[in-house]
Amino acid sequence: MRATGVVVEYNPFHNGHYYHLQESKNVTQADCIIAVMSGNFLQRGEPALLSKWKRTKMALLGGADLVIELPYAYATSHAPRFAFGSIYLLQAAGADSFCFGSESGDVTVFNETHELVSSQDHVYQAYISEFISQGFSYPAAAAKAYEQLNMPLTLDLSKPNNILGFEYIRASRELGSVIKPLTIKRKNADYHDVVLGKGDIASATAIREAVFSHDIEKAINYMPSFTFDILKEEKEDKGALMNWERFYPLLRYQLLSSSPSELNRFYEVEEGLENRMIEAMKDSDSFHSFMIRLKTKRYTWTRLQRACLHVLNKVSKEDMHRILESPPAYLRVLGMTETGREYLSSVKKSLELPLVTTVSKHDFEGLKMEAKTSLVYAQGASLSRLEAEKEEYNTPPVMVK
Amino acid sequence: MRATGVVVEYNPFHNGHYYHLQESKNVTQADCIIAVMSGNFLQRGEPALLSKWKRTKMALLGGADLVIELPYAYATSHAPRFAFGSIYLLQAAGADSFCFGSESGDVTVFNETHELVSSQDHVYQAYISEFISQGFSYPAAAAKAYEQLNMPLTLDLSKPNNILGFEYIRASRELGSVIKPLTIKRKNADYHDVVLGKGDIASATAIREAVFSHDIEKAINYMPSFTFDILKEEKEDKGALMNWERFYPLLRYQLLSSSPSELNRFYEVEEGLENRMIEAMKDSDSFHSFMIRLKTKRYTWTRLQRACLHVLNKVSKEDMHRILESPPAYLRVLGMTETGREYLSSVKKSLELPLVTTVSKHDFEGLKMEAKTSLVYAQGASLSRLEAEKEEYNTPPVMVK
Repeated sequence: MRATGVVVEYNPFHNGHYYHLQESKNVTQADCIIAVMSGNFLQRGEPALLSKWKRTKMALLGGADLVIELPYAYATSHAPRFAFGSIYLLQAAGADSFCFGSESGDVTVFNETHELVSSQDHVYQAYISEFISQGFSYPAAAAKAYEQLNMPLTLDLSKPNNILGFEYIRASRELGSVIKPLTIKRKNADYHDVVLGKGDIASATAIREAVFSHDIEKAINYMPSFTFDILKEEKEDKGALMNWERFYPLLRYQLLSSSPSELNRFYEVEEGLENRMIEAMKDSDSFHSFMIRLKTKRYTWTRLQRACLHVLNKVSKEDMHRILESPPAYLRVLGMTETGREYLSSVKKSLELPLVTTVSKHDFEGLKMEAKTSLVYAQGASLSRLEAEKEEYNTPPVMVK
Repeated sequence: MRATGVVVEYNPFHNGHYYHLQESKNVTQADCIIAVMSGNFLQRGEPALLSKWKRTKMALLGGADLVIELPYAYATSHAPRFAFGSIYLLQAAGADSFCFGSESGDVTVFNETHELVSSQDHVYQAYISEFISQGFSYPAAAAKAYEQLNMPLTLDLSKPNNILGFEYIRASRELGSVIKPLTIKRKNADYHDVVLGKGDIASATAIREAVFSHDIEKAINYMPSFTFDILKEEKEDKGALMNWERFYPLLRYQLLSSSPSELNRFYEVEEGLENRMIEAMKDSDSFHSFMIRLKTKRYTWTRLQRACLHVLNKVSKEDMHRILESPPAYLRVLGMTETGREYLSSVKKSLELPLVTTVSKHDFEGLKMEAKTSLVYAQGASLSRLEAEKEEYNTPPVMVK
């Protein structure tokens, strides 16, 4: 059986994602689609709207056959590490290609850009360092550095999706190009769109806006009916749609009851950010107003939210460095279809990494971090510790026929 | 001017407290009543119903002339240390006597008990250790040890008020008996009463029960009108009456995001209590259900609540030991009447400890702990950090004419 891979967050799953999965299948003629998906916390430094279990169900109903968890350490990291962890896991799961969404739809542009940039990597890195020392954020510095290289501008590296695409290519090269990169042209909808437009495709950002502003019915045309049903059920029955505001009291408590040196122990809290965080919390009455106060030119919103996530989850520099010393050590299956199950049976013996279906049977550092952060996530949904532990340790992979 | 002292929590101030203040004045013929009052957290290991500022106002309206803060380290400690800190501060403030409430109303009983017990202190302590090793809590072990001494049973040392009285006497002896102990006979109402009885005196416990069960009007006969007005205003305007349940989400977050060894750093968390705490949090959906699971014969409810307070406030063993190395180092004035002000002017030059009226001008370790724990308390009332800091650092003493 042939498998292709996708890297996803599904926050939540919408028509654009559905189109991407269908096209990936068409283009590759794969028998099985493997989705590497972030768990409860995402790359923009945010809690996912819905738990990983609900999002796994959406993924399977939407066309994926096997969902593998991208561990917290990668899922909440900057683009290079996020991409490396994802592609590493797809290759480990036996995918011979992966398909990412892009504006151009032409993978050549990405390959060329990668070749050009890597041929001048030392110059490029030196420019980046210089722009960072001038106070630019990493993505801004990278885009400016790229400009300085005076190359034919085929790829705008200031766009998040292009940066990710570029990093996927770099990761696949690092891994020896066993896994082949492909790209699917995205249908309208910009990543940063915040309003719902015409047609049936909108950005996840716009959909989340609609969901939280009580206009969930307005978003109905932009998502498959199963997404709408799950969102509606969660919203009405439990008020269990998560966002940063739900965790704001806990973050505030953590910031106000910690000394600067205690905060500095946490990952991505450095260069005096701990003092800024405490100061910004002074007169804030919501996560949003706190972030407005915290923001400077030096750090992107995303970078700051990630630091907040690590404070909320009490993830120390030490723990993170220890986990990141080596690549992901296991393949955690969050869910599969019948096709996914057949695929796993067919490749089981040749897999390089152990398959994890029940967390309680394994002892990986990465899984411990998953359990720890899941306990925090569960508090947003007011789950008891027992429920949260059951969910994390004993939930069998989601099965969809 | 002559001053007498009282040791209080006023949680909240009621008719029994009013009677106690009037009688203290009658008995001692003092010109000024000094109340040493706990701040935001209390000896039973609970957050106070109302902030120290509201309770100071009640104290002054009810007959006290000067309110001095009992620092967190003493206010949330077992009876011997609570009593020592209180009597030490009263003596330092220049009181030549202090009046505590008791069932007997006869201080001789307390003096005799203290003399008898201290004459056999080594035997008494040995019995206590033995009973503790058999699994009894400290108060139970102390009461049983006292029984074993085979003394004429004049004082029931299993009752909280008697234990406190006994410890006040012991503290005053330790301090060289400069400050004279007196006792006022309490009018009906047992400390542990949970229902409102006949007459106009009820226990603070029963009053709190009424206040939280929405029956605040039923408690009107048991408290001065100013208490009722303040309680009603707080309850209606801000929902700002505090109890453990309001802090439960923060305690839960703290317990669930800490490792046992991190919890073990906190004061009074020892002998594996950290593991029991984590375990007890598993299936609890309220502070009360958590405590029911946590309780064992070995620890009193109070002792366990105190450990929870220190976890909530992140008060480490190290910090606490450093503060407790020496007796209280300052007299913090929370409020005064005109009489209190005159009294302070008259004794100012002879005071052994510095007077603190504005916290921001001083640098005592104890005050830092006060500020830290006040920030946590303020989160129950959803105060911003700025408001909480202003309240703690810049509130001038409450003045009542």
